[in-house]
Amino acid sequence: MSTVQQEPAHWLDAREARAWRGFMTMQGQVRRRVAQQLQREAGLSEADYEVLVHLSEADGGRMRAVELGAATQWEKSRLFHQITRMHARGLVTKESCGNARHAHVALTENGRAVIEAAAPNHVEFVRRAFVDALSADQLDALAGIAEAVVEHLRGTDDGCCDAD
Amino acid sequence: MSTVQQEPAHWLDAREARAWRGFMTMQGQVRRRVAQQLQREAGLSEADYEVLVHLSEADGGRMRAVELGAATQWEKSRLFHQITRMHARGLVTKESCGNARHAHVALTENGRAVIEAAAPNHVEFVRRAFVDALSADQLDALAGIAEAVVEHLRGTDDGCCDAD
Repeated sequence: MSTVQQEPAHWLDAREARAWRGFMTMQGQVRRRVAQQLQREAGLSEADYEVLVHLSEADGGRMRAVELGAATQWEKSRLFHQITRMHARGLVTKESCGNARHAHVALTENGRAVIEAAAPNHVEFVRRAFVDALSADQLDALAGIAEAVVEHLRGTDDGCCDAD
Repeated sequence: MSTVQQEPAHWLDAREARAWRGFMTMQGQVRRRVAQQLQREAGLSEADYEVLVHLSEADGGRMRAVELGAATQWEKSRLFHQITRMHARGLVTKESCGNARHAHVALTENGRAVIEAAAPNHVEFVRRAFVDALSADQLDALAGIAEAVVEHLRGTDDGCCDAD
């Protein structure tokens, strides 16, 4: 439980609150739609899809587990459980040389077929649900905003996703 | 599993992909930080916090369950389980008049104390992690983008959050 703050709270002003609440509402709604679409049309969770995309774009469909952790920004236990589930479903293989630090994750043939079948419908959905709502200027502004926030957060990183 | 698409996929162009991937990366990182902060400093999940905020802003700290479902955009089963857990922890009460359609959810005295203690630290965190990264023009642009996307999605609603 939080200790009660002694100083008066510095609430968001109207402009800040409009941006923050708008952002949170937008991301909640977009993510819910995306999750529904992926589940309905491809039988994949958002996490499954994210792992499959990263692997499919990597050389040989294969990444070090620590690189996959950095790409997804997931904590180690979440990554471990996700990969274990995907391995059980035949979407990926886990390769280790006796040292967990050097473990690799690789797409199976089935995993590649699944992402190749799912991607066109997913991209079409992203276009209809999101991209079509915005002008070219808004797309550029959003990209700049996202890069500013991600860069800003990098300066305050909490080290959850260190390489090992 | 998706059926294989017959037409060539209409992939995102560079501008669209920069905006979409940036948005997804930003939202993933912001939500992870917010979730960690709430858990660490207030012992609350994002979902707990969201319910407490909605109730604390409602007349008498009390809402119809269907209104809370519309405000959170959660499916009924998710809302039900969330409220059940918060009830078990003494944060909310559930009031029903024998008809689930008219069920109400209300803040307890403890629930109000919890949100009042948590809110100042949370807002301070939102300011440091997010608002401080953006200019006034970017805040306005983000609010406009969010409103455009949410309005666009309203036109394609899938009815998941109907009143009953």
